[in-house]
Parts: sequence; C-alpha cells; structure tokens
Amino acid sequence: MNIPTFDDVLAAHKRIKPYIHRTPLLSSSYLDQLSGAEILFKCENLQKVGAFKARGAVNAVFGLSDAEAGSGVATHSSGNHAGALSYAAMRRGIEATVVMPHNAPTAKKAAVQSYGGRIIECEPTQAAREATLAQVVAESGADAVHPYDDARVIAGQATCMLELHEDAGKLDAVVAPIGGGGLISGTCLSLSQLSPETRIYAAEPANADDAYQSFNKGEIVEKDAQQSVADGLKTNLKPRTWHFVSSYVTDILLASESEILDAMYLTWERMKIIIEPSSAVPLAVILKNRELFRGQRIGVIITGGNVDLKNCPGCKS
Amino acid sequence: MNIPTFDDVLAAHKRIKPYIHRTPLLSSSYLDQLSGAEILFKCENLQKVGAFKARGAVNAVFGLSDAEAGSGVATHSSGNHAGALSYAAMRRGIEATVVMPHNAPTAKKAAVQSYGGRIIECEPTQAAREATLAQVVAESGADAVHPYDDARVIAGQATCMLELHEDAGKLDAVVAPIGGGGLISGTCLSLSQLSPETRIYAAEPANADDAYQSFNKGEIVEKDAQQSVADGLKTNLKPRTWHFVSSYVTDILLASESEILDAMYLTWERMKIIIEPSSAVPLAVILKNRELFRGQRIGVIITGGNVDLKNCPGCKS
Repeated sequence: MNIPTFDDVLAAHKRIKPYIHRTPLLSSSYLDQLSGAEILFKCENLQKVGAFKARGAVNAVFGLSDAEAGSGVATHSSGNHAGALSYAAMRRGIEATVVMPHNAPTAKKAAVQSYGGRIIECEPTQAAREATLAQVVAESGADAVHPYDDARVIAGQATCMLELHEDAGKLDAVVAPIGGGGLISGTCLSLSQLSPETRIYAAEPANADDAYQSFNKGEIVEKDAQQSVADGLKTNLKPRTWHFVSSYVTDILLASESEILDAMYLTWERMKIIIEPSSAVPLAVILKNRELFRGQRIGVIITGGNVDLKNCPGCKS
Repeated sequence: MNIPTFDDVLAAHKRIKPYIHRTPLLSSSYLDQLSGAEILFKCENLQKVGAFKARGAVNAVFGLSDAEAGSGVATHSSGNHAGALSYAAMRRGIEATVVMPHNAPTAKKAAVQSYGGRIIECEPTQAAREATLAQVVAESGADAVHPYDDARVIAGQATCMLELHEDAGKLDAVVAPIGGGGLISGTCLSLSQLSPETRIYAAEPANADDAYQSFNKGEIVEKDAQQSVADGLKTNLKPRTWHFVSSYVTDILLASESEILDAMYLTWERMKIIIEPSSAVPLAVILKNRELFRGQRIGVIITGGNVDLKNCPGCKS
C-alpha cells in the first residue's frame, strides 16, 4: 500500500500551483462570539471547480507521464471529485470518464459536463460504483484516479492544510469533514510534519457515521447506501485513509441533519459565502461541542460550495 | 461645499485599518469566459457589516474629537450605512441613532440592532428621511453622518478603490453601482489620482435611473420613491457626489430588474458568494454591454451581501 509522504505534498503543491487558486482564509466575529473560539475558515468553496478536490485530481493528472496520460483518466465519485478530475483532464487535454450514482446532485453532473467529462451512471452503492469503474478501466486502459484511496490524491488534498498552516500560523485544532477520508488523511499528513501538537477533529453526519463507528471499534466499519444532506460524506474509509485516521485523528464528532443545515444557513447569512452541506459539518460540531474549543484558535476547512440553488436540500424558503 | 482630497483618502485608510477587513479579490474563469473580459471582483460583501459602508462610517466616527463624539452620531439610510454607522459607534463606544424607511429589509434592521443602534422609522421618501434626521440632530446634538453626502464618508469609501488598485494593478475600467453616489465618488477620487486613464462606469437599475437621467441632462435630476430589488440604489445624487459623477464618470449603464436578479443568482452559483441585488448591477451591465468590455481587465466592486435569505427578492425556489 503506497502511503504518501510529506515530500509528495511539497511536490504536489508545486505541481498544481498553476491550475488552482490560493484560497483565502475568512473569519467572522459573529461566529467567533457564538462559538467562543477564534475560527479561521479555509475557503475551498472558492477553489477551482468549487471544491478542494481540484487539488488531488490535478496532482494525479499532471503527475502522469505523457504515455500514461494518453489513455485518459477515470473515476467514480458522488460529485466534486468527478468535476475536479474532468477539470484536470481538460487542462491537460486528455479524456476523463466518471462513474456517478444516478442520484448525484444536478449541479455536480452539470460541472462534469461543462469540463467535457463523460458520465456513466450507476446505482448509488459503493459496490456498484467500483464494479462499473473496473469495467471502464478494463475497456479504455484509463488511469483510475480514486476519489480518496490514492496516494497522489491524498498528497494533493494535503496541500490545503499546508496553505492553511502558512496563512494561519499556530492552531490549537483543525476540524474538517470526513467521508472516505482523503481530506482528513492529507490534513494528518501535513500537520504531523508541520504542527504535530495541533489536534485533528473529523466531522461526520450522524446519518453516515461509518468513520465514527470505525474509529470507536478500531477497525474499518463499512456501511452502504448511507443517506445525508451532506452528500459528499456518504462514502466509507479504505485501508489507506484508515492508516491516517487511526494514527493521527484526535476524535470524530457527529452532527444531525438539522444541525448541518442550520450551520450551512448560518454561514450563508453571516459569512456571505455559499457552502454545501458537507462543508457545514465542522461548524455544526464546533457549535455542538463548545467546551472542547472555547478560547482556542481553530482552523476549519470549508470543502466546497456546489449546491443546486434552485433545489437545495432543506431550503428554508 | 467640502470636497475630499486624495490626502483625505490616505488618512482614512490609516484611520480605519484596525476596524475593517482587507477584502479579497476574487475571479471566476466561467464569468470571464461568459463576458469575454477579465473581471476582478473586490468583495466588500465580505467586509465588516457585510458592506463597503463600514469604510465611510468608521472614517467619520473615528475622525471625531472626543468632545464631538460625546453626543453620538445619527443618520438616515435604507440599510447598510445604518448598520455600518452603528458598528462604528459601537467600536468607539458612543451612541448611534438611525432613521430608516419602514420598508427597509429585515436583515438590515436586525444588523443595526445587533450593533446596539437605535432605529427611528419613517416614510420611504427622501424628504421624510431628511426631516426626521434633522429632528433627531436638533434634539440630541448628534453628529449627522450622511450616507453619502459627506466628505468623510466619500474619503472612506475611496479606500476600497485604493485597495483594488493596489491588488489588481492596471485596470482598463472599473464598474460600481450608483445610488446616491458615495462609492462612485470615492472611486473617482482614488482613480483620478492613481490611474486617471481607467474608465469609470456607474451601474444603475433602470427602475431607479435618476443618476442616468442626471448624467444625460447635465444636472441633478431628483426622483422620489423609486422602487427596485436593488434596495441600496434608490437614493438621489447630491451636489457633492454630482461633482465627482459629472467630472470623472465615463458613462452610466442601466439594467432591468430581471437582469439584476439573474446576475445575482449567477454570482451565487458560480462564485459561491452571497451578494445583495445592488451588488449584481455591475455584472448585469457588463453582460449586457459585452462589446464595451471585451478583452479588457475590469474591476468590479461587490458592494454588499446583506440579503434576507428566508425572503429574498425574486428568489427562484
């Protein structure tokens, strides 16, 4: 099993620079007051393709040799990685094929198409995604870029924490959402090198708590067809991400569906940024566990901003 | 008539720094492609109080002597200046009284209250606002800080263009919304010093086109009780802002109500930031007048992000 190193992160940061935004850190005195903490939000909703996933996908695609790139790339993804891989392939001028569950949000399907990616739909289960992707790879010879179980992707996602550390300085804790664990793994990878004393919390929907159960049981627990408004967080850990989660994560904190939506609208209203439900889970768990964070400097990774505004989950109006 | 100078702008920038955010410039390759121009958005929706108005209000309040400040400040405003003046007064520890039309958006009334400002409601006409404010000033001895017809306020708003120029470098044109003309006057003041060859376009709702009519007639045209979704842009020019508009503005461009809302939702969807309708008028006029901007570097000032999300104007859902 290929585990990425911090040198891979530094190489990724250099490689992807021309194709990604250096996203800003934002803060809100209102949310600081509400939480009792100082929260620095790393705004990957303002990233290319509207999500941090651009980092890992670009790192994988631009790390291919010309010969490898010739057969294109392929993946399965519930959404943002699909758009990100299509974007990366477009920038390199190669083909991308993406396997998506048929119930993936319209905005995320449209993103893939806008970057020239080819969509193949499947049932919304982990098994169906993986089988369909295997078939695509067998037929096309494409390089499979897994949304998170891929050393190149983890090294790419780790660059987000690298920038957060550079811009924010010393942090007492970092809170990031957990689905398959790619972002958290990258966060662990960078922080274990840059600031090993910073605590790392993963934030997960209670409705899709496979990582929470894994963490408490001490081994990967798989749960299929999980449902949550946080549509990016329904996937399961893999041994490569479990390696980081089990070694470096301080705790996994859960939030209910309504807590996630409340935190999402609070962010829209007070910070004036559009974040998707998955990105609201960290703020939801911070507001739910104030005693854990009171008086501290907290980094939060806002993972993405891709929402169907015409049909957004639980919209209040 | 006291016309602010560029030295006043530099003094304002130094004075207000501890109380405002240095807001980021954002761009969108999608909107660049759509418009055929390179657009750099100065995001004052991410400013303190959610609007550029924090700049002028803080400059006015912190420029007062202790003796002057003792009687507090007062103003009339359809919204963001009211919140901004309350914020500035709170930071200085003095009282703020704001006269607001009774139909001002709930979010903007709530903002005033959250900063400890006192609201006095009036009819939604220019005359009623001014008469009510005069009464407040007579009774309290408060320093009246007009939302735009005030040299201190114009110098404060001018700091926005100062930062945009520092961060963006050379621009072919700048487009900003026009209501009473405070922001445009500040923009003219800074650009006439920093980059006199940059063209300045004011963007106005066709439903509230008093500045457009003034510009074409060559003298101030007053229109009362104008109605537009761009609720911040319904006010009329004054001689002090007309001085700048008539001397430095290249043209005033109009957008319809639906063009404004389309541009607002496009910004929400593609840039992942919440902007209020008034802030969408520049993008609306750029998309409507592509030939005027094609191939050029354009600065756009996103003026604010205060929207009632539960009851937003023309919401699609």
